[in-house]
Amino acid sequence: MERRSFLKKAGAGIAAGAAVGLAACGKKEEVAAPAAPTAAPAAPAVQTGGQEIRWRLASSFPKSLDTIHGAADVFAKMVSDATGGKFQITVHAPGELVPAFGVVDAVQQGTIDCCHTCGYYFFGKDETFAIDTAIPFGMNSRSITAWMYQGNGMKLMREFFAGYNMVNLPMGNTGAQMGGWYRKEINSPADLAGLKMRIGGFAGRVVSKLGGVPQNIPGGEIYQSLERGTIDATEWIGPYDDLKLGFHKVAPHYYYPGWWEGGAQISLYINDKQWNSLPDEYKVIVTAAASHAHVNMQAMYDARNPNALKQLIAEGAKVKRFPRDVMDAAMKARNEVYTELNDTNANWKKVFGDYSNFMAEQYQWLPLAEGSYDQYMAAQKL
Amino acid sequence: MERRSFLKKAGAGIAAGAAVGLAACGKKEEVAAPAAPTAAPAAPAVQTGGQEIRWRLASSFPKSLDTIHGAADVFAKMVSDATGGKFQITVHAPGELVPAFGVVDAVQQGTIDCCHTCGYYFFGKDETFAIDTAIPFGMNSRSITAWMYQGNGMKLMREFFAGYNMVNLPMGNTGAQMGGWYRKEINSPADLAGLKMRIGGFAGRVVSKLGGVPQNIPGGEIYQSLERGTIDATEWIGPYDDLKLGFHKVAPHYYYPGWWEGGAQISLYINDKQWNSLPDEYKVIVTAAASHAHVNMQAMYDARNPNALKQLIAEGAKVKRFPRDVMDAAMKARNEVYTELNDTNANWKKVFGDYSNFMAEQYQWLPLAEGSYDQYMAAQKL
Repeated sequence: MERRSFLKKAGAGIAAGAAVGLAACGKKEEVAAPAAPTAAPAAPAVQTGGQEIRWRLASSFPKSLDTIHGAADVFAKMVSDATGGKFQITVHAPGELVPAFGVVDAVQQGTIDCCHTCGYYFFGKDETFAIDTAIPFGMNSRSITAWMYQGNGMKLMREFFAGYNMVNLPMGNTGAQMGGWYRKEINSPADLAGLKMRIGGFAGRVVSKLGGVPQNIPGGEIYQSLERGTIDATEWIGPYDDLKLGFHKVAPHYYYPGWWEGGAQISLYINDKQWNSLPDEYKVIVTAAASHAHVNMQAMYDARNPNALKQLIAEGAKVKRFPRDVMDAAMKARNEVYTELNDTNANWKKVFGDYSNFMAEQYQWLPLAEGSYDQYMAAQKL
Repeated sequence: MERRSFLKKAGAGIAAGAAVGLAACGKKEEVAAPAAPTAAPAAPAVQTGGQEIRWRLASSFPKSLDTIHGAADVFAKMVSDATGGKFQITVHAPGELVPAFGVVDAVQQGTIDCCHTCGYYFFGKDETFAIDTAIPFGMNSRSITAWMYQGNGMKLMREFFAGYNMVNLPMGNTGAQMGGWYRKEINSPADLAGLKMRIGGFAGRVVSKLGGVPQNIPGGEIYQSLERGTIDATEWIGPYDDLKLGFHKVAPHYYYPGWWEGGAQISLYINDKQWNSLPDEYKVIVTAAASHAHVNMQAMYDARNPNALKQLIAEGAKVKRFPRDVMDAAMKARNEVYTELNDTNANWKKVFGDYSNFMAEQYQWLPLAEGSYDQYMAAQKL
């Protein structure tokens, strides 16, 4: 398959794993260069006298992930168009400027101006990074957005990121993810013992506690590893992205939910000196454009996942819910990991404390109107 | 109670009913006048040469609904700040320029530049208006946003609104609403027969089919009507807004879900000539600011509803789920209404056909990862 071989060669797809640059793949970049705004015939020209600024944004996601990489393109085009082309942000795939996992160091040092990435890739620096994306049995998409926009989330994360010379803005969410692809059925927690599973970053700690063996494998190598049996399972994102990688052909058991990513937030991290030097108008434009890209990415996943799921099922995917005792074992392991972190990491303890309280309140309300409505609707023939 | 008497006097609260202006209430407007941007010490001044524009925005919502009215303030401030104060939009409460339900006529005629309202108030002009907000057993917040941003929603609604000289942008959602306040328990569909219920707009058609008697009562008069028994029930929005009006003290049975508003979208309608005359940069800024206000309003409701719900329960609200057979009877009545509309309204048929297909696909996917995750989390001690 041409598509898959492209992905293999390019080492594409990095939702939660290592990334290899796509610079050499020769795929034409469609939207990275923000177009100069065309003058609308009916509209009088604006005498833009705004400051000319050029920024470089490094994405941790290859262009093949059009949903996630695409959000940075949407953002950059909006900033350019809102400023009459005065404020240009070029978007770079992994490897063009820095590797996928080098983006935070590069922003911290000011080598690049900003990056679009998932905080949880950087939990090795401090586990608190993970809270900015998703933590096992954490908040869903709606709730983490509420925490960031209207709770203490933005304040707490900005305090934390100040230590890395960064200012953060939420810029996308995938929604609750699927629980990945398995060569064999998972019928009980015992089936997790010794399971070699490709899983990104922080969640691997919980998988280890469950007896599993988390593997960090670049996106482009997962298919082959699954096919050869080097690994037993892999998680990725959800139907739309998973379909591209073809895992259902070699590991057909497709479980839900992805309890380690109930709503994975993607973030824009900006070097704080660059941020502070922006004119006020540009700060507001960056904020508004990030919000637009934020809501647009979730919409993209929601609009595209249903048909991809149908296609996966038509091609042999066996969709299954994780057994209750598997979920319970994972929740128990998660609680142990968090208890340890509360004892050892003061940053984590501070941020997680607030996050955890907010989440608990969310789940006292959301199941009522929202949950019962969805449950009723899902049972209807629509 | 000072608060309630204020609301009564002012005729406040119009989530789905008639509105009376708040101009005379003397409440200080806190955010309506966009502040001139203050120069950041570290930032070089921008030589803004943008066109100076002043727009007037009429809101259908009184200032007391800080979540909904507030979204227009957030939007207007962002547009002003993004343009260095060149593009000023003043936000007006109902009655200041036009009555709450006069906003669409005023935008259509160009008397005002734009309004922030719910399309479903105007279903009398054409039922298709209702699809832009919420229809009984329609899409939830996430799904309608996906339909607007990434499905055919924006295209179809813009085609429709072109007939009213308007360009629309989504600008807020309440999430799934509660099913309202009842003086007596609702144990079966029979309990709806003869029920005098204050319910806004389009949903009243379904209530009528169920044997109920929908009432259109201004927000400020509902409490008294319930207390006197002139009506038996009222719906409003959700815990945060409902608490302000104190319905739990006279009609304690608080049902969920609000099957007529699974996710009520609020919209910005702009006169098309005014929109077309905007410089391209300003169009982009308006679009981005509307997206920011859109996501921010949902976040506001999500962040504030849980504590309000706790307080309502502490003050005697009896929270209950609608019995299954009541939901089924309402669904049946809804289907009858839609079948009639498909036969009689070509606009409705065209837009609803696409909406309905999109919704059906959403509910084939959302229950899996998203639904099962939320269900598990809601059952935990968090």
